[in-house]
Amino acid sequence: MTTTPITSTLTDEQQSVAGKALQDTLVDLIDLSLIAKQAHWNVVGKQFRSVHLDLDELVTVSREFTDAAAERATAIGVSPDGRAETVAKTAHTKGFGEGWTKDSDVVESIVDNLKAVVAGLRERIGVTEEADPVTQDLLISFASKLEQLHWMWQAQIV
Amino acid sequence: MTTTPITSTLTDEQQSVAGKALQDTLVDLIDLSLIAKQAHWNVVGKQFRSVHLDLDELVTVSREFTDAAAERATAIGVSPDGRAETVAKTAHTKGFGEGWTKDSDVVESIVDNLKAVVAGLRERIGVTEEADPVTQDLLISFASKLEQLHWMWQAQIV
Amino acid sequence: MTTTPITSTLTDEQQSVAGKALQDTLVDLIDLSLIAKQAHWNVVGKQFRSVHLDLDELVTVSREFTDAAAERATAIGVSPDGRAETVAKTAHTKGFGEGWTKDSDVVESIVDNLKAVVAGLRERIGVTEEADPVTQDLLISFASKLEQLHWMWQAQIV
Amino acid sequence: MTTTPITSTLTDEQQSVAGKALQDTLVDLIDLSLIAKQAHWNVVGKQFRSVHLDLDELVTVSREFTDAAAERATAIGVSPDGRAETVAKTAHTKGFGEGWTKDSDVVESIVDNLKAVVAGLRERIGVTEEADPVTQDLLISFASKLEQLHWMWQAQIV
Amino acid sequence: MTTTPITSTLTDEQQSVAGKALQDTLVDLIDLSLIAKQAHWNVVGKQFRSVHLDLDELVTVSREFTDAAAERATAIGVSPDGRAETVAKTAHTKGFGEGWTKDSDVVESIVDNLKAVVAGLRERIGVTEEADPVTQDLLISFASKLEQLHWMWQAQIV
Amino acid sequence: MTTTPITSTLTDEQQSVAGKALQDTLVDLIDLSLIAKQAHWNVVGKQFRSVHLDLDELVTVSREFTDAAAERATAIGVSPDGRAETVAKTAHTKGFGEGWTKDSDVVESIVDNLKAVVAGLRERIGVTEEADPVTQDLLISFASKLEQLHWMWQAQIV
Amino acid sequence: MTTTPITSTLTDEQQSVAGKALQDTLVDLIDLSLIAKQAHWNVVGKQFRSVHLDLDELVTVSREFTDAAAERATAIGVSPDGRAETVAKTAHTKGFGEGWTKDSDVVESIVDNLKAVVAGLRERIGVTEEADPVTQDLLISFASKLEQLHWMWQAQIV
Amino acid sequence: MTTTPITSTLTDEQQSVAGKALQDTLVDLIDLSLIAKQAHWNVVGKQFRSVHLDLDELVTVSREFTDAAAERATAIGVSPDGRAETVAKTAHTKGFGEGWTKDSDVVESIVDNLKAVVAGLRERIGVTEEADPVTQDLLISFASKLEQLHWMWQAQIV
Amino acid sequence: MTTTPITSTLTDEQQSVAGKALQDTLVDLIDLSLIAKQAHWNVVGKQFRSVHLDLDELVTVSREFTDAAAERATAIGVSPDGRAETVAKTAHTKGFGEGWTKDSDVVESIVDNLKAVVAGLRERIGVTEEADPVTQDLLISFASKLEQLHWMWQAQIV
Amino acid sequence: MTTTPITSTLTDEQQSVAGKALQDTLVDLIDLSLIAKQAHWNVVGKQFRSVHLDLDELVTVSREFTDAAAERATAIGVSPDGRAETVAKTAHTKGFGEGWTKDSDVVESIVDNLKAVVAGLRERIGVTEEADPVTQDLLISFASKLEQLHWMWQAQIV
Amino acid sequence: MTTTPITSTLTDEQQSVAGKALQDTLVDLIDLSLIAKQAHWNVVGKQFRSVHLDLDELVTVSREFTDAAAERATAIGVSPDGRAETVAKTAHTKGFGEGWTKDSDVVESIVDNLKAVVAGLRERIGVTEEADPVTQDLLISFASKLEQLHWMWQAQIV
Amino acid sequence: MTTTPITSTLTDEQQSVAGKALQDTLVDLIDLSLIAKQAHWNVVGKQFRSVHLDLDELVTVSREFTDAAAERATAIGVSPDGRAETVAKTAHTKGFGEGWTKDSDVVESIVDNLKAVVAGLRERIGVTEEADPVTQDLLISFASKLEQLHWMWQAQIV
Repeated sequence: MTTTPITSTLTDEQQSVAGKALQDTLVDLIDLSLIAKQAHWNVVGKQFRSVHLDLDELVTVSREFTDAAAERATAIGVSPDGRAETVAKTAHTKGFGEGWTKDSDVVESIVDNLKAVVAGLRERIGVTEEADPVTQDLLISFASKLEQLHWMWQAQIV
Repeated sequence: MTTTPITSTLTDEQQSVAGKALQDTLVDLIDLSLIAKQAHWNVVGKQFRSVHLDLDELVTVSREFTDAAAERATAIGVSPDGRAETVAKTAHTKGFGEGWTKDSDVVESIVDNLKAVVAGLRERIGVTEEADPVTQDLLISFASKLEQLHWMWQAQIV
Repeated sequence: MTTTPITSTLTDEQQSVAGKALQDTLVDLIDLSLIAKQAHWNVVGKQFRSVHLDLDELVTVSREFTDAAAERATAIGVSPDGRAETVAKTAHTKGFGEGWTKDSDVVESIVDNLKAVVAGLRERIGVTEEADPVTQDLLISFASKLEQLHWMWQAQIV
Repeated sequence: MTTTPITSTLTDEQQSVAGKALQDTLVDLIDLSLIAKQAHWNVVGKQFRSVHLDLDELVTVSREFTDAAAERATAIGVSPDGRAETVAKTAHTKGFGEGWTKDSDVVESIVDNLKAVVAGLRERIGVTEEADPVTQDLLISFASKLEQLHWMWQAQIV
Repeated sequence: MTTTPITSTLTDEQQSVAGKALQDTLVDLIDLSLIAKQAHWNVVGKQFRSVHLDLDELVTVSREFTDAAAERATAIGVSPDGRAETVAKTAHTKGFGEGWTKDSDVVESIVDNLKAVVAGLRERIGVTEEADPVTQDLLISFASKLEQLHWMWQAQIV
Repeated sequence: MTTTPITSTLTDEQQSVAGKALQDTLVDLIDLSLIAKQAHWNVVGKQFRSVHLDLDELVTVSREFTDAAAERATAIGVSPDGRAETVAKTAHTKGFGEGWTKDSDVVESIVDNLKAVVAGLRERIGVTEEADPVTQDLLISFASKLEQLHWMWQAQIV
Repeated sequence: MTTTPITSTLTDEQQSVAGKALQDTLVDLIDLSLIAKQAHWNVVGKQFRSVHLDLDELVTVSREFTDAAAERATAIGVSPDGRAETVAKTAHTKGFGEGWTKDSDVVESIVDNLKAVVAGLRERIGVTEEADPVTQDLLISFASKLEQLHWMWQAQIV
Repeated sequence: MTTTPITSTLTDEQQSVAGKALQDTLVDLIDLSLIAKQAHWNVVGKQFRSVHLDLDELVTVSREFTDAAAERATAIGVSPDGRAETVAKTAHTKGFGEGWTKDSDVVESIVDNLKAVVAGLRERIGVTEEADPVTQDLLISFASKLEQLHWMWQAQIV
Repeated sequence: MTTTPITSTLTDEQQSVAGKALQDTLVDLIDLSLIAKQAHWNVVGKQFRSVHLDLDELVTVSREFTDAAAERATAIGVSPDGRAETVAKTAHTKGFGEGWTKDSDVVESIVDNLKAVVAGLRERIGVTEEADPVTQDLLISFASKLEQLHWMWQAQIV
Repeated sequence: MTTTPITSTLTDEQQSVAGKALQDTLVDLIDLSLIAKQAHWNVVGKQFRSVHLDLDELVTVSREFTDAAAERATAIGVSPDGRAETVAKTAHTKGFGEGWTKDSDVVESIVDNLKAVVAGLRERIGVTEEADPVTQDLLISFASKLEQLHWMWQAQIV
Repeated sequence: MTTTPITSTLTDEQQSVAGKALQDTLVDLIDLSLIAKQAHWNVVGKQFRSVHLDLDELVTVSREFTDAAAERATAIGVSPDGRAETVAKTAHTKGFGEGWTKDSDVVESIVDNLKAVVAGLRERIGVTEEADPVTQDLLISFASKLEQLHWMWQAQIV
Repeated sequence: MTTTPITSTLTDEQQSVAGKALQDTLVDLIDLSLIAKQAHWNVVGKQFRSVHLDLDELVTVSREFTDAAAERATAIGVSPDGRAETVAKTAHTKGFGEGWTKDSDVVESIVDNLKAVVAGLRERIGVTEEADPVTQDLLISFASKLEQLHWMWQAQIV
């Protein structure tokens, strides 16, 4: 399909800025959900239960935000791309190691990944202020929740 | 972590066969869920609503089965790998095209992907009968549901 | 509609065996639900309340299994037939007498009908093992529940 | 059981009129539920999903009304007969063809069957006004819902 | 309070007829709920459990109808009287004996009381047809349910 | 669309009478819901909370009845008209004043509006008895509830 | 039934004391529930809504406690008597006037009735301490809730 | 009532700007809900079911936002006006044609109306940024949801 | 673990008395739950359904009380012992015979077991009054419920 | 307001004793809920998750008991005082340190605070036995739950 | 614990501004919840019920916002302080008088306290715009709800 | 009762094999539930909370499977024996030590017990394949869940 079937109330410029911010957020969030699931299955150690459960909450949050980001893109007429290959190639996350992983290593890895995703969001909040306050408002709500989770995971390190 | 922290009641041979069947199933199911979401966002056409909703049911099923496959692997002492890159490189699905997609094209693509995933499952049901009847029973339940969905999607083509 | 719009991953031979097993099961289950409803309305006697309520549980189970059997047939590309006339002519149940019926007679009639339906299922479980393990698994789950109900109804006779 | 165990506050004349109206309604409704299920399984075409789902709503309504009609018969001392053979022989519905059926054909068949059932109800509403206002009120509630469904199915033809 | 604070859209004649029908129904229903509770506590015998539970369903129905009857009276500007003394003096029920009561005696007593209450309702359905169709419709719904219960209790006698 | 796509089992005469009764009821109920919302927002005074909450219950009832009236019209093949302008021009309600309104004034206004709507319903209950008992039954159920609310609002005036 | 079918672990003396306390409580609570319903229907005035709703909460509490008192009597082998005439003759409540009643009068009447019921309970809490601590504990729980309601109703007088 | 009973923490200037934005939004949203209901009843065509259901979701959203807009107005001391005549005269929507309407025409009409309502919101988001960020935040949330619906309806046109 | 990790606010004397009362109660309740389950599976006879269901309610109550007794022991620093061997050796219940059991025999056995458990509780209520009113209150609540069940089971014998 | 608007069935002496016991309990419980929230926010360490969640359960319990204590005071005619300054000045808790706090320190602090609150309750249970058994019963239920929590928190120290 | 275990993505300057805004908000909200509870218990007068219930809604809102404010502080690495003494000394609320309080006085006091809390929020919304848009967004959502409540309480004064 | 009241569709040989497998499973599962409860009460240590909660999930699973095993035995005409003494004497579990137990010791003990129960199940899955596929299917479902729990408990050891 070569033509664009969904129109937008934004200018081309605004659409381009907001669209890029949303596509970048989308791949980060999908990867975050895959990383959290990977950790959910491979964690071992005394804190197994609490880490295992916390990770599923992170999965739920990531998936919900993924959908919200993608559907905001469609709402401004931009086709979102969340396919495996696109995620593998363009996400700005820190990734997750192979095989069984000790609980304390899992916690540190999640903190690092959350930090990376939040950093991207903070930047895009600045960029979208002018382009589209509706998109900005969505990114603020993502940052709000992920910064809360960042604290909760970090609090387990001390 | 180089040692294997989780022991299994299966022999090494059985563990190897069942573990491979589960890992192969895992990546297919993750990719199926990503494909279904991609289609969910990009579908356009008269049947938009029903296709859009059906796809979310497929996402839910795929995610549930993904978790079951991964946790069956851990239960027999095999570390599952569901990271983006692994999925992108090893899944046996048919993929999904770029950008906005017409509803009838979406339906055909989903039918093709379901067919491919079911074919893999059917093969592994045969392979695991000896190795581990518990794993086989799980794969049978996956096939049962995905064959039902295969019918429902195919029924929309005529 | 002369052509077959729904394809199957089974061979023609397998499809034929599994399809017949499912169609035979389907009519038995529909008739079982109609018999249970008939008894539900016509029972009289001291045990009225418990028999009346138990029969509705049997109706619910029969209807749920009916749907599962029919949709398994469609999943393997076989069109199911559950119309009144087909049921009246082909079901292997024992039927139910006319008019108001004493509670103890109802109990015996239900036990007989359950026994007949289970006997059919046991036979088809053997037949479908080779043809389609997914269909076999479904029939096993039907037998499991109906044998439980067979015990519960029989326990009221002593 | 030759005697009538359930007494009625109606006269024999009233009981006979109301009892016949309820028995005729009963078989029509059971057949309607079997037809709707048959269509639910065998429909194919672009509108598969919406037709498939609508049919299950029709099944639910038919079953609920079936029970209400049968239990109103018992309440006035008349034994209801809802067995497969009685339904096959005495229902005034239009039936449903064999095998896979195109969505538009399903819609037309359902409209025809609803029309036939409503026609029977309208006649019996007139007949029961004198005999038993309680029975009449029940038949009015059936007609009200089935005429609503008649509109909804017909609206899909245009 | 000597004046009537609630006005009615009915004529004085209509209000008087409908008001009397509702007040008579009200006391019958309150007494029915007290009788059912009394039986609920004092029943003994093999059928204890089913009779005990059935009686609570009768209590629930009676209380719900009591409220509906009273609030219909208020809706047409008639003050309802449901005080203990009024109930004790004016109800047309058959009452209930003192002390522990055998299950079969309970069943017969409930059937008798239901019959008496239904007889009153049938009479008032005739009387209110002209006076107020809204009140008549309410009384029809009471009769419908109580006749169903009359069957269910009677079915336990045989 | 010039032709009538929805057929009816009523005669043209009956359809015309019932259709008019339903259209008149429809606009009255929509306006009642808008008046109740307007009052909900603008009420001030000691009884603010109870009046504010009661009004939302009235809104809920009005909207539910609106939908039932409109869908009864469609069920008999009559296209309902509930657009703002039609409501503004044809409703038989008493309206509601501008700006902040004292609680006691709100109560009186609601009583007046309910009285007007009920008066219309009472008239149409008489008119539709012959034309369509199904429509009449619906209007009776509206009157029943609105007369109950009329009492409840009036009870607050004394 | 002349013999006592239910045995008790209490001595005859203890059974007699606890049994009387429970029977006295039973009739008070039934009458309280009838009084509260009577007030619920007949209240008029500015506070109509809050008084009307509060009264239904009192009905619910009274009915729940009634059942608990009666079933405690049965548990110690004493047949409870909650029939209309027994209530009318032996309750120690203050009663409720005839016809429509102003909200402030309702509040005062309820406060008086609650005070009378609580006074009876307080007395019986003292009496049952020796006879049966289980019965005493039940009466304490009744007093606790009714004293709370006594405050809430009294708080509306000031 | 000539005086203003509700005070605001905004300056007169701010209150005037935000108040106007909210009143304009209010009438647009009420009309949108009436238009969606009108379409809900009058739609005919193959897509009847999905369009009929989607419209009710739009009604729900519109009503929820209507209430939020009106109560934000009251929160800043401005009396909202949502009466039928005010809506009919001042709404900036595109309206909806008379009588039965084809599904594709309904979809286009809804897209046009959503576009018009969103355009108004976008303008007011700019205007209220300075005057009242709380009001602006509310309007952003409306735009976010309505732009999502705009995409979903538009996606059905292709 | 030789030391006592959980401290108590009771004196050693009080702790010893209350601890023994709770441990004795604990084993009785576990055995009661096992007996009830054994009866639940092995009952046969006309009353099968009601006895079968009642027994599961007894299981639920016994398990809930078991947990409460054990956790009250831990709360006062006493380690509870609910292992199979301890139960088999120290419970004061009457046990339950082997194999299929007639419904009337089941009822009598349950009445005997309840009587034995209640007798133990009554004794410990006396003993703990001084030692620990909190423990006593818990035992009173157990006796209250089990005496109610004792009545309900006994009522089925007559 | 100088006069006492709420009367009590207790003597002045009894009211004074029970009132003081409840006011002392009230401030302890409010402070316990504030301490638990403070710890909930400031805890860090490996056990973060379980401690964080446990603390919210303690908050819920404390708030529920606070309300029960205060409303028992009102029920006996005593005005409760739960304002911040009163709590800060009169609570007998052990307080909680400033800033981020290690999980093991949190656990010890909570155990100490629970111990202090329970000690107060135990004292008041003795004092209120004569004065008011209803109040005593409430304090016993508080002690029962808080002693259970005391065990659960202490069990984490070992 | 002297070091700061939780890091932040904000600069020191931003963290300081946002942290202060959140700490100030925190103590105001805790005090608001304590004031609302105090009023909830001590209110007397004709409007007792509605004021009593409204106050609990205010408590719920205040507690929810308290938690959100505190956890936003932790999310940016600032330790929140919500202890009783801190609240008593630093809150900017208007407080609440001692003892039983007339309903109209309660309403005025709540309006004053809400006004004071909103004033603080409005100031901090301005201050945090630059420092941290995520914190600002949270404060806007608090203001939105509290201004709504301010209207609802004020509406009761007129 | 010497005769066997429940008949089976299995041959005597099949019944004997399947019956023994189910009885052996039954006692293992009951003992597992008692062991898990014992551990639930006696665990102490840093991981108290997560171990305490996990154990209750194990209790729930064991009880559910116990019931399923026992009712499968009845379904094939074999009387199950789950009495305390039978469990104490015939279970193949590893047992659980006396008194308070450290969390790490609890984890190891549970892993050992799960391993023993799974080993028994694996053996019986082989044995019942021929005798009764319905029983085998049940045992496979038990093994599937218990192997998952085996992993989860083992994961906490590392």
